[in-house]
Amino acid sequence: MKLASLKQGRDGLLVVVARDLSQCVPVPDIAPTLQAALDDWARAEPHLLEIYAHLNGGKAHGAQAFDPAQCAAPLPRAYQWADGSAYVTHVELVRRARGAEMPPAFWTDPLIYQGGSDNFVGPRDPILAADTAWGIDFEAEVAVITDDVPMGTAPSAALDHIRLLMLVNDVSLRNLIPAELAKGFGFFQGKPATSFSPVAVTPDELGHAWVGGKVHHPLHVTFNGDRFGAPNAGVDMTFSFPQLIAHAAKTRFLGAGTVIGSGTVSNKGSAEGSCCIAERRCLETIANGSPATPFMNFGDRVRIEMFDAHRHSIFGAIDQEVVHYDGP
Amino acid sequence: MKLASLKQGRDGLLVVVARDLSQCVPVPDIAPTLQAALDDWARAEPHLLEIYAHLNGGKAHGAQAFDPAQCAAPLPRAYQWADGSAYVTHVELVRRARGAEMPPAFWTDPLIYQGGSDNFVGPRDPILAADTAWGIDFEAEVAVITDDVPMGTAPSAALDHIRLLMLVNDVSLRNLIPAELAKGFGFFQGKPATSFSPVAVTPDELGHAWVGGKVHHPLHVTFNGDRFGAPNAGVDMTFSFPQLIAHAAKTRFLGAGTVIGSGTVSNKGSAEGSCCIAERRCLETIANGSPATPFMNFGDRVRIEMFDAHRHSIFGAIDQEVVHYDGP
Repeated sequence: MKLASLKQGRDGLLVVVARDLSQCVPVPDIAPTLQAALDDWARAEPHLLEIYAHLNGGKAHGAQAFDPAQCAAPLPRAYQWADGSAYVTHVELVRRARGAEMPPAFWTDPLIYQGGSDNFVGPRDPILAADTAWGIDFEAEVAVITDDVPMGTAPSAALDHIRLLMLVNDVSLRNLIPAELAKGFGFFQGKPATSFSPVAVTPDELGHAWVGGKVHHPLHVTFNGDRFGAPNAGVDMTFSFPQLIAHAAKTRFLGAGTVIGSGTVSNKGSAEGSCCIAERRCLETIANGSPATPFMNFGDRVRIEMFDAHRHSIFGAIDQEVVHYDGP
Repeated sequence: MKLASLKQGRDGLLVVVARDLSQCVPVPDIAPTLQAALDDWARAEPHLLEIYAHLNGGKAHGAQAFDPAQCAAPLPRAYQWADGSAYVTHVELVRRARGAEMPPAFWTDPLIYQGGSDNFVGPRDPILAADTAWGIDFEAEVAVITDDVPMGTAPSAALDHIRLLMLVNDVSLRNLIPAELAKGFGFFQGKPATSFSPVAVTPDELGHAWVGGKVHHPLHVTFNGDRFGAPNAGVDMTFSFPQLIAHAAKTRFLGAGTVIGSGTVSNKGSAEGSCCIAERRCLETIANGSPATPFMNFGDRVRIEMFDAHRHSIFGAIDQEVVHYDGP
């Protein structure tokens, strides 16, 4: 099943989207918003599935053309956004570029940061920033949305708490991050509002690509129209989504609608390119002593998309331009 | 005006509470939940104020006894919880106890961490933990709830975005924190679910104690029935709430219902005691070479409360017992 939120009010209007992303149908009588559906998933899911079957069969009442530009993030705001850094090969590369050792425990103990979830950005909305000196970068990732996860849930039990998957652009302000992390309390100003794909899908939509709590498809990133990278999200993901969920739930309950991200997708050696500018700059630094690719400027555009075996877009595309923010 | 959320569903039932905390009245026709009121404050506020006037005059239709034990947190779940560390004198003390220097920039650049907001805990609910080896501690704080704050809002404009104030118990797992912070991504497992006072109040309820975006009253902490500390929240608060809000909004918009915390209240010299066990342990370490006060055990109880000039409780009391969590 595929779901999206058309822009309407603070929480959007939940729509069921056809598998081929051509059409959608609002379902206010089942659940007005995606959060409402997640809050009561056992009740809502069978009704949503029925609509989805009708829509794919071309028989849904009230169907309309689906336009990703009319979409908010599937959850326009959420109660939790916890982003992992599960591709440890990426972390190792970043450390190597600055001549630092990575602690061996990074291979066994997941890295997760708590992100801001009060104001997610739609898939075609601008990346607003006041200053390019902040070092504006994209990070292409995969994320899951969970139901209620009890404290202390084991990785083996966490898989069944995954309700939906999405793509993410975890926008990062690279030049604010070093000083912020040096203060010891993690990211804040360095992580502005995060963007998500037009559509969230249930795991069964991934078919055989959903194995072991990982998504085994390349994640395609295009920067200003040029291919930037397409590493496989199922390769070199050191911690699966169930492992990330279990880590997040070790000392607390996770509420329905919790979003857990994978971190920048990255494959060892980066032969298929990168999912963020920072990684390319690290590769340039290691090869040539200094980075050559600049961070994003106003007017730059990033596109993030994933395709199934038949080259059909699974989630629709994130496609965003960096736009100058003039201030309040 | 004073507001609370009685336990009901995921988001509670909004009630207006009398100034003396004796009675309350549900207001589902104005706003079913506090988040709904905050989402539409300009419309809701005058209607809520009218009820509040009737309630204080003893004439509110539908009034019932107010029982803090029936309360969820004022926002049972929120879209953002950002907790500062505004009493820099506390940070300096903690560093001194472990023989470390504090960077001078800590006096001018606020520390804020992003907390989990999907599952706040009611004022009389247990602090659930699986293991006392985690080093369970309370942190008594003050917090504000904002409306929509534009990106780039200046401190001078941030004061007007404060809608409500609450007390906080920012429960911390001290023995998980050092290893977690060493990983560089900030707190996650070290900060389990946070608790809030029964009642949230509009700034005018604080009268002359609300000056310069700070609350000038002692914050009383009682541990297992004994006074633990009562430092003044308006003293040695290096960064006011407007400054914390402006810091949080530098690179992003803050959604209505954003909760911003002060960090552990602390006065230089700690003559009036402390608002967390960790601070007392630091004082013991500096005085005697090692800490003497243990962290919380199962069955231990902490009470956090603030009084007006007439010794009336402003927010009601947080009063929580540590209870063993058996697992999912």
